Amino acid sequence: MKTVYSEKHRLHAPKEELHNGLVGPPFEKPERAEMILKALKEKGCHEILAPEEFSFRHIEALHDPGYLKLLQSAAREWRDLGRDGDALPANWAAGTMRTAVPPVNLDGRLGYYSFSGDSRIGEGTWTAALSSAHCALTGMKLLLSGESGVFSLCRPPGHHAARDLFGGYCFLNNAALAAQYALDAGAAKTAILDLDFHHGNGTQDLFYHRKDVYFFSLHGDPLYTFPYFTGFADQRGSGEGEGFTMNYPLLPGSDAETWFAALDDACRRLREFRPEVLVVSLGVDTYEGDPLSSFKIRAEDFIEAGRRLGALKLPTLIVMEGGYAVDDIGVNVCNVLHGYAEENPA
Amino acid sequence: MKTVYSEKHRLHAPKEELHNGLVGPPFEKPERAEMILKALKEKGCHEILAPEEFSFRHIEALHDPGYLKLLQSAAREWRDLGRDGDALPANWAAGTMRTAVPPVNLDGRLGYYSFSGDSRIGEGTWTAALSSAHCALTGMKLLLSGESGVFSLCRPPGHHAARDLFGGYCFLNNAALAAQYALDAGAAKTAILDLDFHHGNGTQDLFYHRKDVYFFSLHGDPLYTFPYFTGFADQRGSGEGEGFTMNYPLLPGSDAETWFAALDDACRRLREFRPEVLVVSLGVDTYEGDPLSSFKIRAEDFIEAGRRLGALKLPTLIVMEGGYAVDDIGVNVCNVLHGYAEENPA
Repeated sequence: MKTVYSEKHRLHAPKEELHNGLVGPPFEKPERAEMILKALKEKGCHEILAPEEFSFRHIEALHDPGYLKLLQSAAREWRDLGRDGDALPANWAAGTMRTAVPPVNLDGRLGYYSFSGDSRIGEGTWTAALSSAHCALTGMKLLLSGESGVFSLCRPPGHHAARDLFGGYCFLNNAALAAQYALDAGAAKTAILDLDFHHGNGTQDLFYHRKDVYFFSLHGDPLYTFPYFTGFADQRGSGEGEGFTMNYPLLPGSDAETWFAALDDACRRLREFRPEVLVVSLGVDTYEGDPLSSFKIRAEDFIEAGRRLGALKLPTLIVMEGGYAVDDIGVNVCNVLHGYAEENPA
Repeated sequence: MKTVYSEKHRLHAPKEELHNGLVGPPFEKPERAEMILKALKEKGCHEILAPEEFSFRHIEALHDPGYLKLLQSAAREWRDLGRDGDALPANWAAGTMRTAVPPVNLDGRLGYYSFSGDSRIGEGTWTAALSSAHCALTGMKLLLSGESGVFSLCRPPGHHAARDLFGGYCFLNNAALAAQYALDAGAAKTAILDLDFHHGNGTQDLFYHRKDVYFFSLHGDPLYTFPYFTGFADQRGSGEGEGFTMNYPLLPGSDAETWFAALDDACRRLREFRPEVLVVSLGVDTYEGDPLSSFKIRAEDFIEAGRRLGALKLPTLIVMEGGYAVDDIGVNVCNVLHGYAEENPA
């Protein structure tokens, strides 16, 4: 199975993260991608490719121009203000506070364009995020040229990034950009299946009003789980997009049986929808050993999950999202890909 | 001049504050109120009174029940989760993320009910915030019983607190609660004049749709100044409240001349509106030496500001808000009160 990977992810390496009110070592760190790459290489059955470069219009297709400018300039502006470390927002446009006009001040823009205090923008963040998006776009391009399944080892992840909001470690929505690329290349309809423990609020937001991208998400119930305010079962899309968002919020502590029941329902609907291509937002933070999550998915369950994805027999791009049990992340991801390949031998 | 002060403010003493991406010593700290009290005592012409207790309905009159519950329980819940330090939100309901239902999870509720990462809730925060509100209510009660001018030395401050949002060091909106108390006691119309360097987003939000509280605010332009997203000149109120919000956003670095021109315009409109009582949200972070602000108001200008307030000849409650140049905060506040008293000798 072809895997698209960029070494540039290492350029995004925040030194610390705000967690439980304290500043400590980050959960989202370069080792995550390194461990996955190592596991793939040990398997020996993966061809590792570097991403192509793509026209910026493929990024602008889904993200706001002012937002993209901020991602590119924030670290430099932060440094120019004489501040140490990486740029971090400190207040947000909550409730009724959001206005049509972004502030001029850097802190104002950081808050205007984000929703959480866990995602710092450093000198290399933009280059890494752009390369991560290129990994997803390259994967989709390979898929459209005839591959049956491709893995884009994206880092930083993307599914929390909305049109103009970063947060949850995400800056550019890699999976969404890949889906849009397929549409722009002529596909009439695509689907995104988000298996990360956390709701893909960014992806939902980007396609909530559209019927050409059917968004499915299995995740921790937002009443109990980051990012908290999106991913409810009654969020089904709106306008033309009504009925094309499908959320499966699952209670904290949910086991494999519960999770597979939701996955099977999503797969049944996917078969009915018949997208020309499928994008899977693969977070393996559903794993029982994950430090940020609470589902009880075991390593071997990921093989079965891969089989069910493979059994859909759809051209499938698997895009890496979350997963913070670094020692086991490689095995868990390999298991998904292995299960998928069982159903789709090269 | 009667001053209402509660020693309970000391119970709110966050050990650290997130500022410029780093955790460091707090700007909003007990010494602020202590220094003001010391300066008042040195003047010798202030009668210091402890606040009365008030029925909780005076707090519930403006704040959301779920929000009030969180303020009371957050520190205990935080500790019960095994976490150190004071409770701090980590992600927010930005943009379109806000839902009608607050999350169950503590982190979710902290984010749902706040807009910034600078305000921690510790064991004593609720008691201090409630006592701060009681200082404002007591001040208003004194005013309604015939005093011409009263100073409520509130801490924590209040003007950033909205119906259901804390942030900017504020938890309960002391000034707004006092204005509402006056209305509940029979006043037909009141006004709030906010002189803090930062826009009183909470106060604006609470009365935006109402015509019985005319809200005036002089502050740093939100394009450049915390809390960034409110306080624009074209925010004039809505519905029945249209025309009863008046914002004077001033550019960073504005001097006394600019500031007094705005103050005079507000005073002219106040004279036309003829409120039965006036509440002044007094922040002295407009001071040229303030570490968080950029206006150029000198210590002696605060005397003149007090005179202009006094010249309105309205029953006036002066409520303490911000001001972070701790060494000078006492003199600056005393200057305002001194100027006011010149125009209104006892």
